[in-house]
Amino acid sequence: MTTTRRHQVVIVGGGFAGLHAATSLRDAPVQVTLVDRRNFHLFSPLLYQVATGALSPANIAAPLRDVLKKQKNTRVLLGEVIDFDITNHKVLLSDGELDYDTLIVAVGVRHHYFGNEHWEARAPGLKTIEDATEIRRRVLEAFEVAERETNRDEQEKWLTFVIIGGGPTGVELAGALGEIAHHTLRHNFRQVDPSLARIILLEGADRILPVYPPDLSAHATRSLAKLGVTVLTGALVTDIQPGCVTVRSGAQDVQITAQTVLWAAGMQGSPLGRKLAEAAGAPLDRAGRLIVDADLTLPRHPELFVIGDLAHFSHQSGKPLPGVAQVAMQQGSYVARLIRARLAGNSLAPFHYRDYGNMAPIGRAAAVAELGRLHFHGWLGWMMWLFVHLIYIVQFQSRVLVLVQWGWNYFTRSRGARLITGAAGLRFGHPTAAGRGADHPPTP
Amino acid sequence: MTTTRRHQVVIVGGGFAGLHAATSLRDAPVQVTLVDRRNFHLFSPLLYQVATGALSPANIAAPLRDVLKKQKNTRVLLGEVIDFDITNHKVLLSDGELDYDTLIVAVGVRHHYFGNEHWEARAPGLKTIEDATEIRRRVLEAFEVAERETNRDEQEKWLTFVIIGGGPTGVELAGALGEIAHHTLRHNFRQVDPSLARIILLEGADRILPVYPPDLSAHATRSLAKLGVTVLTGALVTDIQPGCVTVRSGAQDVQITAQTVLWAAGMQGSPLGRKLAEAAGAPLDRAGRLIVDADLTLPRHPELFVIGDLAHFSHQSGKPLPGVAQVAMQQGSYVARLIRARLAGNSLAPFHYRDYGNMAPIGRAAAVAELGRLHFHGWLGWMMWLFVHLIYIVQFQSRVLVLVQWGWNYFTRSRGARLITGAAGLRFGHPTAAGRGADHPPTP
Repeated sequence: MTTTRRHQVVIVGGGFAGLHAATSLRDAPVQVTLVDRRNFHLFSPLLYQVATGALSPANIAAPLRDVLKKQKNTRVLLGEVIDFDITNHKVLLSDGELDYDTLIVAVGVRHHYFGNEHWEARAPGLKTIEDATEIRRRVLEAFEVAERETNRDEQEKWLTFVIIGGGPTGVELAGALGEIAHHTLRHNFRQVDPSLARIILLEGADRILPVYPPDLSAHATRSLAKLGVTVLTGALVTDIQPGCVTVRSGAQDVQITAQTVLWAAGMQGSPLGRKLAEAAGAPLDRAGRLIVDADLTLPRHPELFVIGDLAHFSHQSGKPLPGVAQVAMQQGSYVARLIRARLAGNSLAPFHYRDYGNMAPIGRAAAVAELGRLHFHGWLGWMMWLFVHLIYIVQFQSRVLVLVQWGWNYFTRSRGARLITGAAGLRFGHPTAAGRGADHPPTP
Repeated sequence: MTTTRRHQVVIVGGGFAGLHAATSLRDAPVQVTLVDRRNFHLFSPLLYQVATGALSPANIAAPLRDVLKKQKNTRVLLGEVIDFDITNHKVLLSDGELDYDTLIVAVGVRHHYFGNEHWEARAPGLKTIEDATEIRRRVLEAFEVAERETNRDEQEKWLTFVIIGGGPTGVELAGALGEIAHHTLRHNFRQVDPSLARIILLEGADRILPVYPPDLSAHATRSLAKLGVTVLTGALVTDIQPGCVTVRSGAQDVQITAQTVLWAAGMQGSPLGRKLAEAAGAPLDRAGRLIVDADLTLPRHPELFVIGDLAHFSHQSGKPLPGVAQVAMQQGSYVARLIRARLAGNSLAPFHYRDYGNMAPIGRAAAVAELGRLHFHGWLGWMMWLFVHLIYIVQFQSRVLVLVQWGWNYFTRSRGARLITGAAGLRFGHPTAAGRGADHPPTP
């Protein structure tokens, strides 16, 4: 009697790409192991709503074990991958190792400060749940400090918010901050008027949302203006100091005094991607993403797939596919189909991305959307955005809760998840919190 | 022309007592300042549901500014009170001070380890949002580590949970853990069976819920047994080491090997209460609570009120009122009525607590409830518990969301907020996480 060992597929990363690869391998004649450092899948397109107090972390996160609990051929492993032994087909964990026949790496990207990594503490980015609650804390505390500040200049500094990067994340954050300042916090304060807050969105290119058609960029700029957001284009950030952002606009350097600065300007491949590239002798692009073949494998390594944001795939149009959930999901299911085909002795055409369109929400009830040749904006774009995002949220429970929460937020202009957490008490963790203090006692 | 200065009421603490005092002063001819270190009111009776992944923090927290935004005579101040200057009628903040005519202190209690404060890291208590997410992390990680552990003894240790203290909090936590192990995590793991987890509830008295009538204690014990919870009564904890709890039961010392230990055994007045007692020359009881007069003031200080869990009030039955939300809310509104009466030149009868009953939920669909002479248990008790708690959640939004979340949890036996957060990745922060490691690689 012989026991045939099943083909082992190891997937590193439970984001859109990795999770879709796993679920697409349901009932395939393989043993799947999904490894992630976190115990949940994150619906990252809604992360900005956690950062701005509209949703709770659990609304946009689904426990990986729960999503995969009925998939008999799949196990979930909470663990930290530290390197790869390509020769011996092993994934090295901080406390063990895993054998694979096929390896799928989908560990995504992280913020990129273009050589100014020390800016991170002054201008945090938005990639994880912890990033989101940290940004939420900074934004809410800024209004709290402004309320107690008696010096006008200091107060204004605390009421100025700069978002660096006019891509979808920057536009979403700016719109949500506009909502907060003009509507959510109305009547909440006694000394300051939150609607006097300045929200400045900086973009290096000549228009925001540069990957969208120009008419939608213009619509987005108008929608943001209605929410009190100032858009500065052609503005390159040259320095970030505590309380001050320096911007080169044309030939001039402009200084913007602002206590809260958020970063939405750049992404680079996760460090683990670099390790895989070294181990497999695979090429990286300038953003640290792995350049993959037309079937999403690494050169000379048909058993190694890289998918999702970490993959640089340019076989379709000559330029790399964008780092969006749609691309990641389609790549995940392509890889699963290719593995099935191979085990059945068949082959498969190269990966082909079907672009169903792009959309970016702006504040409470506007969005821009591009679906092929059709362009939508305003309320109609927003309804489409809402519909698509509800459909794609992984768990039905979250869909119901998010819908109820959104319905509530929409009609009341409230945001229920406005908690300053993470410390047992006050922190005021902004770099220059020392600006306030006993000099300006808040005595009535 | 003379401007009359309004009577200044400063309330320290935005819990049930402080918030009810503030809202009860709506439209009173006073200026109210509510100071808290946190920006939200916490509905603490449901904190155990956050600790066990059933609800999100924002579901049980309401931003204080939002609750009070329409109350014109009231301002909210996010700040840290460090001491009191009774002579000059000042509250001292870490960065300023506040003048008061009447001061209401409602800063509550914290865990009490009876001289074994070093136990705190090994057996955390449940009082804040951060406590709840920390307990959630420990519980969820314990199952994750057990899944990867190959040594049987170690695995069993990670699957043993000890809750110290058989009062309402301990019973609620134990019941929720029973639900998690037997229902929520079903099919989630491949190596371990979560329903084999041992959950042990330790109580020093001869029955759990000792303040309830004996028949309800017996019902609670039976309900817990159905959820796989072992109740040990007459069990005094004499030591807590990492991975081991020592219990004196009768004349014998028993050692329980358990990785996760939770503390629900004792409370003491907040340190700020002690400072107030020193400043005002007021008496403290053994638990560090301030012994108040029949009108909730401190002796010889009619302008100083202490209410809520921090107050020791024994003028009614000879023994102090329990530290529950009902008492706190009634005291808050009594103080507001007394302040109004004084300003109108009237007096008021001493505080009288109206006891509407007690209830404690056990798992998904059982509770014990005592309403005067009527005792309820099982499903009926649970429906009553559910109704009362929904009614009292401060914001309507939370009521809707909690109802939807509970409905979902009830019918699916799921818990959506099962997130391990607070670290950018893995921590396995239990004291003896070193027990696992490269000795037991999780290779398939």
